[in-house]
Amino acid sequence: MTDPSHAGSLLTVDLSAIVANWRLIAQGVAPAKVAAVVKADAYGLGAAQVAPALAAAGCETFIVATLDEGIALRQVLPAPVILVLNGPLPGTEGEFVAHSLVPVLNSLSQITGWATSTKAGSGAPAAALHIDTGMNRLGFDEAELDRLAARPEVLAWVRPILTLSHLACADSRDHPMNAEQRARFVHLAGRLPAMPLSLAASGGCFLGRTYHFDLVRPGAALYGINPTPGRPNPMAQVIRLQGKILQVRDVDSPRTVGYGASYHVAGPSRIATVALGYADGWFRSLGNQGHGVLGGVKVPLVGRVSMDLACFDVGAVPPAVACPGALVDLIGPEQSVDDVAAEAGTIGYEILTALGRRHHRRWITGAGETAA
Amino acid sequence: MTDPSHAGSLLTVDLSAIVANWRLIAQGVAPAKVAAVVKADAYGLGAAQVAPALAAAGCETFIVATLDEGIALRQVLPAPVILVLNGPLPGTEGEFVAHSLVPVLNSLSQITGWATSTKAGSGAPAAALHIDTGMNRLGFDEAELDRLAARPEVLAWVRPILTLSHLACADSRDHPMNAEQRARFVHLAGRLPAMPLSLAASGGCFLGRTYHFDLVRPGAALYGINPTPGRPNPMAQVIRLQGKILQVRDVDSPRTVGYGASYHVAGPSRIATVALGYADGWFRSLGNQGHGVLGGVKVPLVGRVSMDLACFDVGAVPPAVACPGALVDLIGPEQSVDDVAAEAGTIGYEILTALGRRHHRRWITGAGETAA
Repeated sequence: MTDPSHAGSLLTVDLSAIVANWRLIAQGVAPAKVAAVVKADAYGLGAAQVAPALAAAGCETFIVATLDEGIALRQVLPAPVILVLNGPLPGTEGEFVAHSLVPVLNSLSQITGWATSTKAGSGAPAAALHIDTGMNRLGFDEAELDRLAARPEVLAWVRPILTLSHLACADSRDHPMNAEQRARFVHLAGRLPAMPLSLAASGGCFLGRTYHFDLVRPGAALYGINPTPGRPNPMAQVIRLQGKILQVRDVDSPRTVGYGASYHVAGPSRIATVALGYADGWFRSLGNQGHGVLGGVKVPLVGRVSMDLACFDVGAVPPAVACPGALVDLIGPEQSVDDVAAEAGTIGYEILTALGRRHHRRWITGAGETAA
Repeated sequence: MTDPSHAGSLLTVDLSAIVANWRLIAQGVAPAKVAAVVKADAYGLGAAQVAPALAAAGCETFIVATLDEGIALRQVLPAPVILVLNGPLPGTEGEFVAHSLVPVLNSLSQITGWATSTKAGSGAPAAALHIDTGMNRLGFDEAELDRLAARPEVLAWVRPILTLSHLACADSRDHPMNAEQRARFVHLAGRLPAMPLSLAASGGCFLGRTYHFDLVRPGAALYGINPTPGRPNPMAQVIRLQGKILQVRDVDSPRTVGYGASYHVAGPSRIATVALGYADGWFRSLGNQGHGVLGGVKVPLVGRVSMDLACFDVGAVPPAVACPGALVDLIGPEQSVDDVAAEAGTIGYEILTALGRRHHRRWITGAGETAA
């Protein structure tokens, strides 16, 4: 996407806001350190831009999900620690070593694969260990830890630098599972050699000091998603998404709009067709549910979202403002990622990771300085 | 995505099936011609691979949504006609001419912009005209056609080669709007100079001969989506999506799985964690709704879909089959794109366009020959 004049939609990512969010968490959890989760291309916002900005601000540990994400990130971050959450798929251990990536070892199968593929002893490459404390998704459960304890030579072959676990319900401050998982984490980590511990992702950063341990791992909160649902969002908003009007239609008689004729325009109004659709990650579930903001006025999304287009009723906006080429705010100062997610029936995380490739993207730093 | 061993999920696109689907439609609509809609990166399946395969099969007209899609497609298709549905955004007319792209002119604003930016007369670059017959999304409505008719010099400045419109309800064979839109199309097209006409997209190809006119424009049907919902799918399946198992957990006591502890495992079973999630376009709405197929056995998706992971209950599959590294079929012979869409609460189109960038992609032609 080379030229903003070609694009039907514009996505602006405020790197300064991401850095400010990282610093806010760092102040809140000190002396614990703060890693940055930049998996899934920094939640769709561009790991190649986001990670260097955070490294410049002092972040020393970055977290991705997959080997290929780690390899790509190593190209732009020569020095920092890069953890790979999914760990090695069989046969890929050598690639982790070649790119100085720290695998998170989640199972006996991964740890034995790692131990037998890499050099033992003090020169062994670093790894992290993942204890499952209640997600039942990835990580050693108690039975696996027992089996690992029975084979101390396996653990001797790896050089673990971090033990981590993951909370299932950290976005519900009062959920009893938080304290249960914390207690289980302390209990199970005690069976391993002493090393730094990490339990909290975005939500966990806001559950209080006892959840911070040595390292916290925010992702969503860095990108402006509220880590404390139901309470005011402490994070700065990070992105602005704007869609360009292609055409405005005067409607003076009753008619329907879009596929399936699902929306009925009753009276005189104007319908603006905007050049973005579900192929851009503007979810189809926003049909007849979502809205935009144009000239300070809330404009409802009418009809179904098409693959490349969405229609908005702009009858309340002056025609000089609602004209071809004008930009409708879809995510921004007046409508957060979380707001759009609520209208789409999902969570802000999915709104971010679904952001499409056709948006013209620009990254801004400081007071409007741009780095396209 | 360079190496399949690195990837948590594999996406296979059968170019032969796409060509077979195009030929099936061509036989059904002859003597009408068949354009191929390859917008949104050929519905997520790779326009740079799909379009040349169809051109080799005889397709002479390709359709994209945006200028940048047209420019990219021109790199791989030097000769064919390329139509750009959204038409020119203000100031981009020269780019259309430079890349020999045919804009679809949707409004008076676009047609006057085009006429004043390009050379008039018989040497003028070709354009298409879009008449709105009931979508109320893009295209000239009757009032705009009247205004256009009052300014014959504008139309004289463009060289229209096609008039098109779009059906709102073509996937409902018996919807009265189909015949209404067809009649309106004939009526309104009669106000323009005689030229080839096009009304049918995928659904319209199957509404009968009177809907075919001179050119049909299938997209979804080429990619295996059923153009006749409620009746057997006449199209060949095109894609296979497989997720790799990272870890299998024996569960012998009651517990919950994943974020929000939304799934309760009651009895002894095994849970497989697969390396794909909603950041890969495996919709979060599939949580506790979707399923995969492993070793011929249907395996339910349990718990919420995470950003990079999804869990399946593989208790009914032998442990030797449900093991780390094994591939769970998510879309394929036993579960179509439309099936997954139904479980996710959307349509197959959105499942395709959401397919993520982390899948290892390969395109096959003929009997297993691969073109990675």
